[in-house]
Amino acid sequence: MRAAIMRDKKLVVDNIPTPAPGAGEALVKTLACGICGSDLHALKHAEKMVESSRKAGALFPMDLKRDIVMGHEFCAEVVDYGPQTQKRLKVGTRVCAMPVLISASGIAAVGYSNDNPGGYGEFMRLTEFLLLEVPNGLSTERAALTEPMAVGYHAVEKARLGKDDAPLVIGCGPVGLAVIAALKLARVHPIVAADFSPRRRELALQMGADVVVDPKEKSPYESWREMAVYSDPSKAPMLQIEPLTGISKELNIQFVLGYAPEEFAATLSYLADGRVNADPLITGKVGVEGVAKAFAELASPETHAKILVEPWHS
Amino acid sequence: MRAAIMRDKKLVVDNIPTPAPGAGEALVKTLACGICGSDLHALKHAEKMVESSRKAGALFPMDLKRDIVMGHEFCAEVVDYGPQTQKRLKVGTRVCAMPVLISASGIAAVGYSNDNPGGYGEFMRLTEFLLLEVPNGLSTERAALTEPMAVGYHAVEKARLGKDDAPLVIGCGPVGLAVIAALKLARVHPIVAADFSPRRRELALQMGADVVVDPKEKSPYESWREMAVYSDPSKAPMLQIEPLTGISKELNIQFVLGYAPEEFAATLSYLADGRVNADPLITGKVGVEGVAKAFAELASPETHAKILVEPWHS
Repeated sequence: MRAAIMRDKKLVVDNIPTPAPGAGEALVKTLACGICGSDLHALKHAEKMVESSRKAGALFPMDLKRDIVMGHEFCAEVVDYGPQTQKRLKVGTRVCAMPVLISASGIAAVGYSNDNPGGYGEFMRLTEFLLLEVPNGLSTERAALTEPMAVGYHAVEKARLGKDDAPLVIGCGPVGLAVIAALKLARVHPIVAADFSPRRRELALQMGADVVVDPKEKSPYESWREMAVYSDPSKAPMLQIEPLTGISKELNIQFVLGYAPEEFAATLSYLADGRVNADPLITGKVGVEGVAKAFAELASPETHAKILVEPWHS
Repeated sequence: MRAAIMRDKKLVVDNIPTPAPGAGEALVKTLACGICGSDLHALKHAEKMVESSRKAGALFPMDLKRDIVMGHEFCAEVVDYGPQTQKRLKVGTRVCAMPVLISASGIAAVGYSNDNPGGYGEFMRLTEFLLLEVPNGLSTERAALTEPMAVGYHAVEKARLGKDDAPLVIGCGPVGLAVIAALKLARVHPIVAADFSPRRRELALQMGADVVVDPKEKSPYESWREMAVYSDPSKAPMLQIEPLTGISKELNIQFVLGYAPEEFAATLSYLADGRVNADPLITGKVGVEGVAKAFAELASPETHAKILVEPWHS
């Protein structure tokens, strides 16, 4: 199959073997797959990501000397089934799924993996029981936003906001925008969103922010420092926290990762019934040949938010 | 009045003017006042505390060139009232109170202040409406534990523990021990407590910990590093956090400060009705002449947990 491959820390397009579905797995054809900021990070800081992941408990064990097909925000179509499957969904059914393979030997990532190619290739193996049918009428491109939107939904769930809490979303990349949509869904207002980019602030308003802030206007020195941190994460691998400031404000820091299965499924249904409109996020589409260029363009916040890869289109 | 005074970053005993109660204030006689770890910190790292406090929003504005009478964990006796008071409690009534003075000009600390002497002196000014009568039968020394026990109660409230949460208390100084008592009160089990000190682990068990751990036995390198950090806070003013570790474990960090007024009052009532037994905390008593020596002894966890200052005893 054709795929955009991370090879020697670069993105190349090549033909690789089409994956064969194992026990309990479906073979699916990738219809659309969003490019995630984490993928940009993984390409630019591959060694650091592998090392951090190892320290954090081997979330994403990857051998950078071998090919990796990234892509974990996908909508796909059932093509075939492996052994020991129930074939619950007909061939041709459009599906979304959490990007993991579950088997008796554990849980493995789809995408950040040498063995489980993600959505930047034409085909993927997916665990059958995780497949969620795309509800009738929901477009493929909207369905492909389930994964990033679920990340925002989960973050807002974990925040356990009370009635008197006032949300401030710092950074309006796709995850920040997904958080805004989830806050809107949860009816927590006013939603204040901050980003240095005018385009991102515009998207924040489209996604439901009530107020947008340009941090540059308020504290240029702080703004500069923050920009410096985020433009090169390898230079600032640690968060520095002054305890007495946290204490005096009784700050709460909630780290979040991914989503629960029910949050993922809820997000798909909210996209399908229109309670969540994530259309403003989609700013471009490319085939596998266009992935490397798309990665480069996504480095600027002014042009794009979410670019979808459609491996079967050129 | 006689008082143990922080003067030129040392503790000395001297006579200073007895405070005069202002509008809305009571004059009280200090019966007992616990020595808090923060007081040790304030004495040893006075400049740093003032500077951190300034950065965090001027919690404790202090001029180190002037006298400071610390002490904010007290039980006292009403002696007199200033103007514009209701005289709700009779002279001679034993009281506890949050260590703050509230007036039209704002809130000021009692203890960490040049103008509002704390419980290491014979008399204090307190805001009348904050006075809580010590319920009949509760001893003065137990009542004096209300403040530190309220700190633990508040921390557990803020933790918003769910049914599946397993508490681990790291560090069994007086605050850690107060947290253990609050966890026991909240019936969150098993309570696991860790401290390098055998004596502190013993106290943890007495306060209600189900399991105690000596971190030295498990990870000597980490243990050493932690001890190095805590033995000299000025060398480690920042917390360093590896984001991906926090993310992968979905960690939550809740900074806490003090307590709400209702938490303070609830703690006093729990001490009075026996639901909280904090007796193991009290390991010594001194008069004002003994405060400097008590500060020195409290540097070791093996001898003492909480030493009460009784300004009227020698």
